[in-house]
Amino acid sequence: MAGESAYQYDLFVIGAGSGGVRAARMAAAEGARVGIAEKRYLGGTCVNVGCVPKKLYAYAAHFHDSFDNAVGFGWQLPAAPTFDWATLRDNKTSEIKRLNGIYQRLLDNSGATLYNAHARLVDPHTVLLTSDQGEQRVTAKKILLATGGWPWKPDFPGCEHAVDSNQVFDLPRFPERFLVLGGGYIAVEFASIFNGLGSETHLVYRGELFLKHFDDEVRAFTRDEMQRKGVNIHFEANIERIEPEGEAYRVTLTNGETLTVDVVLSATGRVANVKGLGLDALGIELDKGGKIAVNDRFETAVPSVLALGDLTDGPELTPLAIAEAMRLVDLHTKEVSAEPIDYTTIPTAVFCQPNIGTVGLSEEAAREQYGKIRVYRTDFRAMKHTLSGSEERTLMKLVVDDATDVVLGAHMVGDEAGEVIQGIAIAVRARLTKKDFDRTIGIHPTGAEEFVTLRTPSRY
Amino acid sequence: MAGESAYQYDLFVIGAGSGGVRAARMAAAEGARVGIAEKRYLGGTCVNVGCVPKKLYAYAAHFHDSFDNAVGFGWQLPAAPTFDWATLRDNKTSEIKRLNGIYQRLLDNSGATLYNAHARLVDPHTVLLTSDQGEQRVTAKKILLATGGWPWKPDFPGCEHAVDSNQVFDLPRFPERFLVLGGGYIAVEFASIFNGLGSETHLVYRGELFLKHFDDEVRAFTRDEMQRKGVNIHFEANIERIEPEGEAYRVTLTNGETLTVDVVLSATGRVANVKGLGLDALGIELDKGGKIAVNDRFETAVPSVLALGDLTDGPELTPLAIAEAMRLVDLHTKEVSAEPIDYTTIPTAVFCQPNIGTVGLSEEAAREQYGKIRVYRTDFRAMKHTLSGSEERTLMKLVVDDATDVVLGAHMVGDEAGEVIQGIAIAVRARLTKKDFDRTIGIHPTGAEEFVTLRTPSRY
Repeated sequence: MAGESAYQYDLFVIGAGSGGVRAARMAAAEGARVGIAEKRYLGGTCVNVGCVPKKLYAYAAHFHDSFDNAVGFGWQLPAAPTFDWATLRDNKTSEIKRLNGIYQRLLDNSGATLYNAHARLVDPHTVLLTSDQGEQRVTAKKILLATGGWPWKPDFPGCEHAVDSNQVFDLPRFPERFLVLGGGYIAVEFASIFNGLGSETHLVYRGELFLKHFDDEVRAFTRDEMQRKGVNIHFEANIERIEPEGEAYRVTLTNGETLTVDVVLSATGRVANVKGLGLDALGIELDKGGKIAVNDRFETAVPSVLALGDLTDGPELTPLAIAEAMRLVDLHTKEVSAEPIDYTTIPTAVFCQPNIGTVGLSEEAAREQYGKIRVYRTDFRAMKHTLSGSEERTLMKLVVDDATDVVLGAHMVGDEAGEVIQGIAIAVRARLTKKDFDRTIGIHPTGAEEFVTLRTPSRY
Repeated sequence: MAGESAYQYDLFVIGAGSGGVRAARMAAAEGARVGIAEKRYLGGTCVNVGCVPKKLYAYAAHFHDSFDNAVGFGWQLPAAPTFDWATLRDNKTSEIKRLNGIYQRLLDNSGATLYNAHARLVDPHTVLLTSDQGEQRVTAKKILLATGGWPWKPDFPGCEHAVDSNQVFDLPRFPERFLVLGGGYIAVEFASIFNGLGSETHLVYRGELFLKHFDDEVRAFTRDEMQRKGVNIHFEANIERIEPEGEAYRVTLTNGETLTVDVVLSATGRVANVKGLGLDALGIELDKGGKIAVNDRFETAVPSVLALGDLTDGPELTPLAIAEAMRLVDLHTKEVSAEPIDYTTIPTAVFCQPNIGTVGLSEEAAREQYGKIRVYRTDFRAMKHTLSGSEERTLMKLVVDDATDVVLGAHMVGDEAGEVIQGIAIAVRARLTKKDFDRTIGIHPTGAEEFVTLRTPSRY
């Protein structure tokens, strides 16, 4: 892409989140002339209102269990620990500012030119940048759309009183009573966070069971464990209306229940963040899922305009956006043929309490796609909880293709499930067999060793 | 092995630890007539004075960090938590009693006959059992020695004042000042345990650096982290003598230092537990390492007498003893040819603080065996510690054969390293390549994701 060009840039990236920054840095490292525009904050959703602050809050919430658990191990807390929301919130903000600075330096050092501006497509090679300093046009051989996702809120009477998952991180006051609407991973994570921090917590979801697309047993197990920890779960219900009641809110559900809470979080999904991007001008349309359609070279209907990450179809995950960015730069800047990404074995974690870690096919999907499968599963009280007194249980399961012995999926609900599943994911992606798992010696005593000591199928 | 026989048992097992119990249960399940003798406690070292109580104590010690870490996350502890040794010790003992009972039921249900007796070999097919009820002889077609290991204490003036790793679990009083002699995993684990529980802690080791045979960088990193947490490390020193001083002990080191402590733990190695086993009568000798030599069918010099686990050469690990037991039963009871165990990729964890997890070759061993290697390594402050204020760092490294790209070793020092390494071990045992690791999408934000995002070799 480098060399003589009628354009100012070889690549112009719109959006400095996980995918955009990686693409900009990698392309610049290859000698491409790169520009990148960001109107809000460096690092995108992940750093500012996603993975990072969410994980920090999940850590904070987990200390509650630690205090309880410590007693059985001989620790005495002369007075109950108290929690101060402002300390957590403001320490989180400082940490994010530090990370924003790291992103700034990464971009500066990469040689890419950063514009703190709103960017709109004008034609297949031109972007209009708008900032406090005014407007300017830049031209580029290729333009990468990497503006990610944005929370979507449903419409009902009083919906304006609900906060979204961007706003919930910076609540001015701690919600003693907290309600989250939704059944995706954001909803269960925030239910666990505020429950752990001490809120009376309600989760309201219109379906029978949350975490659609996850393994059914994982979903049910997580429900049971979250209820055991005190989350009030209202399935098959929706919010009918929200009415202010002093400084609080009266929430009426479609099942007739009314709840009075201090904060309502709408975690009802995210949509492609395309507002103001100028897609219409170029005739780039959204698909049925509201995402930008791309081919396997990340090209939209306009070949010089590329897109990746949460803007396009597929799991909305930081490491995937980064993998896509690296593949995209290989294809378009290094002009090498890059290996396709295997979208069927992308591991993921949900940081509810207990954590979920998962890779590959659910039991249901495997049964549908492979016919005869073997399911190896165990649930148990983790060793820690023999002394802690906690009734928390851990679930671990492997889904195996009976014909080939290939492990199709691995699922866990329990402490550090994400840490455990990462290594397992290497094995699952490489299509190792159950026999390969069995041949591996366990590390005793760990929870993870159960994944290599499951001898007998629980069902077929 | 079952069927008509001149012997009372097809298999008689001496020692009801991890290996012995698994062999007895599996053989009985195959229809063999099985007897098993245990003179001390069911479950052996692992359950009674090893893995289980050690891990429980490591949990207890880790709460100390949790209390400190919580403050940065908004938690306030109005008064400092205090620790009561008797609560931990006695809760641990109750849990072990529960586990002993589980082992008892497992054996009862298996159909094996348990003798609470001391067992001594009389001839290649006869064992003399001695208990409070008197003596009896039993005969068996094959006899399995599974008596495990026993702590070894060096000889120096006052050595009788040191406790060993069996006794340290049940100290009558908490040691405000604690000294451990040794450089193996037991020594570093107990140094971390008592340091975490609040003791002034000293580790004394004659070598330059502890944890011989581990990766050198792992060893040095662990030393630095343990010192940072407050463990006083005295390398290139030994104990010259121990003298009582009131209720405490004055310990004089070979480097001239004197330390006054409440408890001295000798963690200076373990030997094969063969005392009183009657090996001499059968002419079974110990090898140079003090272990019983066996062939790849676990047969000693007397073919009807078998041995496994800590009695024989190789890593002294519960999961290995269990793997050996299963292979032994395949070979001798089911008479099927069992796949050999790969002793080069046995993963293991050390539950010092921070934890160590490791599988495969150290950087040094890989360089020696493979010549050109690639080392990918990173060290970083875990996300949790951006808010906790802790300076604790995490080390992760991969050792890769340059010619084949096979990952030869994976090493980690950090939170939950054992949980992380278990899955990695499946990949390493299956000889997956660095490219297989790279192709795996990370789980963000975890520590483990670093193992699949190490792009650039740190050295060759």
